[in-house]
Amino acid sequence: MPYIKARLSIKLDEIQKDDLQKKLTDATSSALSKPKAYIMTEIEDGKSLYMAENKLDKGAYISIKMFGSAGKSACQTLTQSICSILETEYGIDGSKVYITFHPVDLWGWNGSMF
Amino acid sequence: MPYIKARLSIKLDEIQKDDLQKKLTDATSSALSKPKAYIMTEIEDGKSLYMAENKLDKGAYISIKMFGSAGKSACQTLTQSICSILETEYGIDGSKVYITFHPVDLWGWNGSMF
Amino acid sequence: MPYIKARLSIKLDEIQKDDLQKKLTDATSSALSKPKAYIMTEIEDGKSLYMAENKLDKGAYISIKMFGSAGKSACQTLTQSICSILETEYGIDGSKVYITFHPVDLWGWNGSMF
Repeated sequence: MPYIKARLSIKLDEIQKDDLQKKLTDATSSALSKPKAYIMTEIEDGKSLYMAENKLDKGAYISIKMFGSAGKSACQTLTQSICSILETEYGIDGSKVYITFHPVDLWGWNGSMF
Repeated sequence: MPYIKARLSIKLDEIQKDDLQKKLTDATSSALSKPKAYIMTEIEDGKSLYMAENKLDKGAYISIKMFGSAGKSACQTLTQSICSILETEYGIDGSKVYITFHPVDLWGWNGSMF
Repeated sequence: MPYIKARLSIKLDEIQKDDLQKKLTDATSSALSKPKAYIMTEIEDGKSLYMAENKLDKGAYISIKMFGSAGKSACQTLTQSICSILETEYGIDGSKVYITFHPVDLWGWNGSMF
């Protein structure tokens, strides 16, 4: 049940969004050992992101909520994968990317708690 | 002071948004024993949500930030209510809904901290 | 590495957004003793925010993710500054503003973890 929210400054079309969510799902499933069937992603494009007081033409903020937690090395692996995807596919430099990981103990789904 | 953010894949008009925030406020006030006067909600519609690598026509992600925490059974009650609202009113199946609960210790309002 | 997300009910033009992110960056850098170079902000305007079951013409929700944590008095200082900025510049009353502070232990940037 990770929930991955990607907020990008650049604009993406539907095909690019779909491609990005698939790559994020793959990377997360692999790094955190979670089945893809339970990974939810949300892609938001064209956001007003700033860093060091400057508007980012190409920047991204990704938050990952995880049921339970994950070790730092798994998060390191995922950070590396996500930065690589964003750089290779969209030309977003890793220095303009923040990724925050959030352990969640109380997680509801389908009328009950995990 | 809960803050409830609802992110839905479907589009809602102003009347539906208003109705949904009222129902979410009611359910949260009741399950978490918080006065309605302090509950803030935000409704976002038409979001690009995916699960198991598929775009969700009808899906939702809800995050609930709570000052202090809440027990699992209160969260269970609220999850049940929210899933029921989303299913009954908008035809969103509970299996396409994630609800995460976030205890917050540091909460500012009106120039001071709670 | 704080990441500040501001969600306002009012609409802002590009110049106002830029002005607001600068003021938020200044206030955060000062209150939390973080270099401006590492502060990321995101401004979202025109959001559907409600409080006490009423739509807010002028309201705001701000979340601040911080690597590590911060003391309550630093958060108090920042809350005061942010409420003052929102009131002075945009006429948003502090009673219609929530600010939540989120310590984060797992934070990725540029391919690695902090």
